[in-house]
Amino acid sequence: MTNPSRLFLFAGGNHGKWHVQSMNTIVGDPLPIVTHLEVYSESESVPETDLLWTLRGITSNERYVNQEEKKELTSKQEGLGRPQSTDAALIPIRKKPEWWALTQQERREIFEESSKHIQIGMKALPAIARRLHHCRDLSSSEPFDFLTWFEFTPEETALFDQLLADLRATPEWDFVNREIDIRLMRS
Amino acid sequence: MTNPSRLFLFAGGNHGKWHVQSMNTIVGDPLPIVTHLEVYSESESVPETDLLWTLRGITSNERYVNQEEKKELTSKQEGLGRPQSTDAALIPIRKKPEWWALTQQERREIFEESSKHIQIGMKALPAIARRLHHCRDLSSSEPFDFLTWFEFTPEETALFDQLLADLRATPEWDFVNREIDIRLMRS
Repeated sequence: MTNPSRLFLFAGGNHGKWHVQSMNTIVGDPLPIVTHLEVYSESESVPETDLLWTLRGITSNERYVNQEEKKELTSKQEGLGRPQSTDAALIPIRKKPEWWALTQQERREIFEESSKHIQIGMKALPAIARRLHHCRDLSSSEPFDFLTWFEFTPEETALFDQLLADLRATPEWDFVNREIDIRLMRS
Repeated sequence: MTNPSRLFLFAGGNHGKWHVQSMNTIVGDPLPIVTHLEVYSESESVPETDLLWTLRGITSNERYVNQEEKKELTSKQEGLGRPQSTDAALIPIRKKPEWWALTQQERREIFEESSKHIQIGMKALPAIARRLHHCRDLSSSEPFDFLTWFEFTPEETALFDQLLADLRATPEWDFVNREIDIRLMRS
């Protein structure tokens, strides 16, 4: 197989490129506190020692954006790994079973028509780079549905905080029953 | 975790509850010929010997049906395991990268507005029972995107063949680049 790597693993422990600044449980069960985090793609070997937890997710096709939104996102967003983006955040989220029992149309209506998720996210571009990982269909027992990874400069922290506050105030977030906000700084 | 089992494994080999009647490659690479097939849920242990191949998929949330279609499907469809349904089919399918690059709306338009996938499937209810398994987000290197399992009585074979012929004639099927039609009979 020559597929590009879509599967990523986030390993929390006492070493890693990213130094944990805070782990704030917004709703639901917390994760064990760790001091460091490392991000692995599936082609990389993960050390089995000194890890308190690992979370995994897979990048996938778009689920909610329309063609116009996709074009605007693609033209505005920048990739991960910008040298000046020394700050990062990992935000694992789980949604209630009620969310998953909705139809695609109903989810899209809550996601964008009523919650403006895409428009809220667009306001933070290109400052906040982002990669979304899906967990739900990796197995039947993943602890989260999504892992979102963000990278930005220290100066853009306030913008990032505003982005999260805006999203958390939406009707979509009524369906979130577990969310942990992990802030990181490149070591 | 008390999640119900969503992950299923289809094991081809020389033993199993289902006897293979035919393996017809519609498009793309074939699978090795086997005489028997067994279906395992994730809580069951899979024997490691005498298997020529295993395919795995996970049941998930609905991606394309609207509320009206969902209601109609739910009211008409019957579950797997009906005693008189001694015939079955496993149809693994992969779609082209072009499909996955479309937006959700564009996929829905091809899926139902132009291809009538749901309406075609509805005509076969409740005779043909069906369970759809997603593979694409289990890992980056699954050989198929979907595995669909069907159960019906021998008398309904012509109806099932018509269902497949109707689906394969749709614009949606232009995006299919691997499909194998495996017919089975309960041993």
